[in-house]
Amino acid sequence: MSSTSRRDFVRMAAISVAGAPLIPSIAHRATPTTVRQEKKLGFALVGLGSLSTNQIAPALRKTKHCRLAGIVTGTPAKAEKWKSQYGIPDKSIYDYQTMSRMADNPDIDVVYVVTPNALHARDTIKAAKAGKHVLCEKPMEVSTARCQEMIAAVKAANRQLAIGYRCRFEPHHLEMLRIANEKELGEVRLIESGFGFSIGDPTQWRLKQALAGGGPLMDVGIYSIQSAEMIAGQYPIAVSAMTTKSDPVKFKDVEESMTFELKFPNGISASCTTTYKVNGFNRSTAYADRGSFGLTPAFNYDGIKGWRSDQKPLDAPEVDQFATEMDDFANCIINNRPTSVPGEMGLRDVRTMMALYEAARTGRTVRLG
Amino acid sequence: MSSTSRRDFVRMAAISVAGAPLIPSIAHRATPTTVRQEKKLGFALVGLGSLSTNQIAPALRKTKHCRLAGIVTGTPAKAEKWKSQYGIPDKSIYDYQTMSRMADNPDIDVVYVVTPNALHARDTIKAAKAGKHVLCEKPMEVSTARCQEMIAAVKAANRQLAIGYRCRFEPHHLEMLRIANEKELGEVRLIESGFGFSIGDPTQWRLKQALAGGGPLMDVGIYSIQSAEMIAGQYPIAVSAMTTKSDPVKFKDVEESMTFELKFPNGISASCTTTYKVNGFNRSTAYADRGSFGLTPAFNYDGIKGWRSDQKPLDAPEVDQFATEMDDFANCIINNRPTSVPGEMGLRDVRTMMALYEAARTGRTVRLG
Repeated sequence: MSSTSRRDFVRMAAISVAGAPLIPSIAHRATPTTVRQEKKLGFALVGLGSLSTNQIAPALRKTKHCRLAGIVTGTPAKAEKWKSQYGIPDKSIYDYQTMSRMADNPDIDVVYVVTPNALHARDTIKAAKAGKHVLCEKPMEVSTARCQEMIAAVKAANRQLAIGYRCRFEPHHLEMLRIANEKELGEVRLIESGFGFSIGDPTQWRLKQALAGGGPLMDVGIYSIQSAEMIAGQYPIAVSAMTTKSDPVKFKDVEESMTFELKFPNGISASCTTTYKVNGFNRSTAYADRGSFGLTPAFNYDGIKGWRSDQKPLDAPEVDQFATEMDDFANCIINNRPTSVPGEMGLRDVRTMMALYEAARTGRTVRLG
Repeated sequence: MSSTSRRDFVRMAAISVAGAPLIPSIAHRATPTTVRQEKKLGFALVGLGSLSTNQIAPALRKTKHCRLAGIVTGTPAKAEKWKSQYGIPDKSIYDYQTMSRMADNPDIDVVYVVTPNALHARDTIKAAKAGKHVLCEKPMEVSTARCQEMIAAVKAANRQLAIGYRCRFEPHHLEMLRIANEKELGEVRLIESGFGFSIGDPTQWRLKQALAGGGPLMDVGIYSIQSAEMIAGQYPIAVSAMTTKSDPVKFKDVEESMTFELKFPNGISASCTTTYKVNGFNRSTAYADRGSFGLTPAFNYDGIKGWRSDQKPLDAPEVDQFATEMDDFANCIINNRPTSVPGEMGLRDVRTMMALYEAARTGRTVRLG
C-alpha cells in the first residue's frame, strides 16, 4: 500500500461503493503516513452560491488533502463557469436530478453540502446513498427529524458525516479552548457572545422560513452557541430567548434579532445576541475566576483578534478556516478517525435552536435533556 | 432676597419644617441665579461605609452647591473620626435613634442615604419626616412596597426624592444618550451591557438577602438596566433571566450570577450579565442601524472610555460622578426643578429587578405594564 496512488485510493473507494462498503480502518490504518502524504480526496461542492464561490473553492486550493473534483448545481451557466475555471471534467458536473450518479464516480470521495439549510437533508442523503462522505454546512438542517434522517443515511452508507463548524479548527478559538481547559485564568463562569450583521437583499433565501428554517439564530447565532459549547465543553441544558422585530415586512418570515441565554450543566451561563438588523456583533468572551479572555472579532473568515485581561497575548496563526476544516475531515476519512464535528453535534445544536425558538415563542425557559 | 445668605436660606428651611412645608418655588424662583451662586446645601450622610468614606465625602468637597453638614452613624468611633476630619459640629452628628432630631437642625437640607439596601426606606422616611430632601443610593429598596412608602413619605413632607443614579449625570453616558437620541448612527436596535465583579468578604451585607434584597443584580446589574433604559429612553416591558451558582456556601442567600434580557416598547432588546463571581464585566454597547458605540469600562467611578464603530471619538470630560450627581440634586432643590432621577424611577427599576428574579425562579418571561 505504500505506493498507493490517489487513483488506486479512489478506485478502492469506488469498489467499496459498488460492493460492500469500504471500511476505512482496514484500507488505511496500515499506512496512514504515506496515505496522508500522497492522497488528495476529491470534494464535490453542492450549491455554488457565494460561500462556495468565494470561500470554499479558493480554500480547496490551499488544502493538503483535498481537491475540487466535482460540482452539483441547478444553474447551467454556473456549471460552465466552474468547468472552465477549475477544469472540472464533464462527468463530474451534476445537477440535483443527476447527482445520484455520483455513485459511479470514483473521483468524488466527499460531498460538501452548501445549499440552503432546508435542502441539507435532501443533498446529504443523496450523497450518502451514492456512497460519499458528507461535509454539511451549518446549520445541519431545519428540524431535528431531518438531522436524524441524515445521520441514519450516512451511517447506513458506512461513511462519515461532519458539520461545517469551521471555528472548531480555528487556532484562536482553539487557544480559547486551551485557556479554558487548562484553567489558566481559573474556572470559566460566564460567557458572552454575539454575532450578527445587517442583511441586504430582502429576496434572499436566508429570509425565507421554508428554506432557512429561521433567521439570524440559524445562520450566525449558531456561532455563539458553538463558541459557548466549545468553551464550556458541554451542551446547554436550559435556554431562554427573546426576539424583536422592527421591520415586519423584511422579516415577515424569520426573527430580526434574538437575545438568548444558555445554561450548561457545569454552571456556566452564556448570554448571547444575534441579529440580521445591525452590524457590529462579532465577539466571544469568557469570564473566569482570575480574569477574562476573548475574541473580537471572533467569527470572521480572517482577522480574528484575541485578548486576555492579564495583558498576555492571545495570539494564534491565521489560517484559511475552510481549508483547515476540509483537511481535518479528509484526515479523519483517510485515517479512519471519527470527526470531532459529527452529525450528532449538528443535531444537538438544531435541537438547541428549536428550543430557543420555543423559548422565545412561549416566554418560558426550555430544558434540554 | 438677592443678598440671602446660606444662613438665611437654611433658616427658611427650618421655619418651613416647624410650620408649613417650605415650597421651594416660592422661596427661590425669584432669584435662582443669586441663590445658585451663594448657596451651598447642607448634606447629611447616613451610613458611613466605604462608599461614603471613599467617594461621597471627598466628592462633597468638589461640589459647587453642597457641603458636608452632618452624619448619621451607629458607630461612635466613626462619628469621632468624621467629626475631627470634617469639622462636623456635635449637633449635626446623629445615630439611628436620634436621627429624627434633624428636624430641628437647619444646617441640614438634604439627607443622603447610603445604608444597606433594606434600610433605605427606614432612613428615607425618617429624613422626610424631619423635613429633609432625600438622595437615596441605588437600589432604592428591596421591595416595590417600600419604594412606594418612601415616595409617599417624601411627598407628604413636600420635599424631593432622588435616587443615586450617578451615570445619569456622567458625560460619557450623556454622550451615549445624545448619539442615540440624535440617531447619529441610526436607530438603536440592540444593547449589550454587563457589570460585575468578584466579591470579597463573605460576611458583608451585600451577600445577605435580608439586607441586600438580592445579589449582584440589585447591586451592579442595576447599572446595566439603567444604561439600557437611558439609551432606549423607556422602561422595559418584558424580562427574562437565568441565575447560576457555583459556590452555594458563599452565595447561599443571593444569586451568584445572572444573565438577563430586557425588551422595550420601541423594540429595543438588551442582553445583560451581572455577577459577584468574576471580574471584567463593565461595559455598555449600543448597536444602531449604521454602527455601534459603547463604553468600556462603562460603570467605574473614573476612567470611563468610549468608542464608536465609525472611529470618531466618543469622548467626554472626566468628572467626579458623585459631585455631579449631588450638585444636580442641589440645583433641583434650589431652583425648584424636579430631579430627573426621582423615586418613581427607582421604584420602576426595583419592579424590573423583582420581575427578573421572578423570571429566573419560574423560567418565564415576565411582563411589566
